[in-house]
Amino acid sequence: MENTVIAEVVVVPLGTSSTSLSAYVADVEKVTGRHPNVKSMLTPMSTILEGTLDEILALIREMHEAPFLKGADRVSTRISIDDRRDIQASMESKLQAVREKM
Amino acid sequence: MENTVIAEVVVVPLGTSSTSLSAYVADVEKVTGRHPNVKSMLTPMSTILEGTLDEILALIREMHEAPFLKGADRVSTRISIDDRRDIQASMESKLQAVREKM
Amino acid sequence: MENTVIAEVVVVPLGTSSTSLSAYVADVEKVTGRHPNVKSMLTPMSTILEGTLDEILALIREMHEAPFLKGADRVSTRISIDDRRDIQASMESKLQAVREKM
Amino acid sequence: MENTVIAEVVVVPLGTSSTSLSAYVADVEKVTGRHPNVKSMLTPMSTILEGTLDEILALIREMHEAPFLKGADRVSTRISIDDRRDIQASMESKLQAVREKM
Repeated sequence: MENTVIAEVVVVPLGTSSTSLSAYVADVEKVTGRHPNVKSMLTPMSTILEGTLDEILALIREMHEAPFLKGADRVSTRISIDDRRDIQASMESKLQAVREKM
Repeated sequence: MENTVIAEVVVVPLGTSSTSLSAYVADVEKVTGRHPNVKSMLTPMSTILEGTLDEILALIREMHEAPFLKGADRVSTRISIDDRRDIQASMESKLQAVREKM
Repeated sequence: MENTVIAEVVVVPLGTSSTSLSAYVADVEKVTGRHPNVKSMLTPMSTILEGTLDEILALIREMHEAPFLKGADRVSTRISIDDRRDIQASMESKLQAVREKM
Repeated sequence: MENTVIAEVVVVPLGTSSTSLSAYVADVEKVTGRHPNVKSMLTPMSTILEGTLDEILALIREMHEAPFLKGADRVSTRISIDDRRDIQASMESKLQAVREKM
């Protein structure tokens, strides 16, 4: 089985006139629905993804385009990838490991 | 009422011999329990915080020390602050705004 | 002597109507000139700082306010701190160590 | 001409027993030498890249593998992309715009 990674992504349009960005974030989020192989979790600060590195990079590439399709002229995208190859980690196993130690 | 911000923080020790960091993350997470004025949510990639900027910076300062207290010699801390002053945003209101638009 | 850390900071106003942010970045950057104890380096993506952790956090707190003083209603600030306590690292020593190994 | 973006990347191995990571960073940095179409600048906290989005993503994919090739079991990679499509920005033009306003 191919190794899966956990990643976090934030896609933000800059210079949008309104400080409210939720309509852009909703469009970015809809992209994840078209990639059923990648697990996705929306948080108040980001979207967290779980899947193979190649699937996730392809998904993020598409999420990054979403604000441009809605008219934005500048997009800032931040990605954080946690790739562990000694064990098979998941979003759930990471949370579980921390909770057990608390 | 003082303005609250939403922040995200990741505190990671470097050069720890083991790839498993959950014991360190648990110690970092325990610090949030000592700051009841700041709301806290653990995600698989970070801790998200809601409170006044000064409370949150004091809390993060303490979270950053936790791995050193456990023996780490190098700590990498990342912080992302979302500070909106035209409306009073919360973790819940941010999620809500995105969900309504989806 | 107190330990110094290397930090990186990006302060971005959201919802500014113009995609050009350089006037805001210039204002953020001017704050570093008022903190002569902290070394500062402007890069095309961030400002890198070297100083004690307390000096740097006080400086970043002030940088984060700068766009609000210019009229912004929402500011996104990202900070990355590299705190090494086994040796005294500097911006220059970090670059030097990588170059020697290349 | 295809649009170019400015990106910043940090590739860090976790659980390496030594707090010194410069040998890993040097290996990551060498990857940029094999992509002459992408401009690259090493800073004390990151590598900054300028090129088309597709070239940069392919390069970062390869940089992310470098620590695994050297024996690391866990790698944390952070990417920040600044993609502006109303004008053609470069590392140099971004710095210049800020300096003019200071």
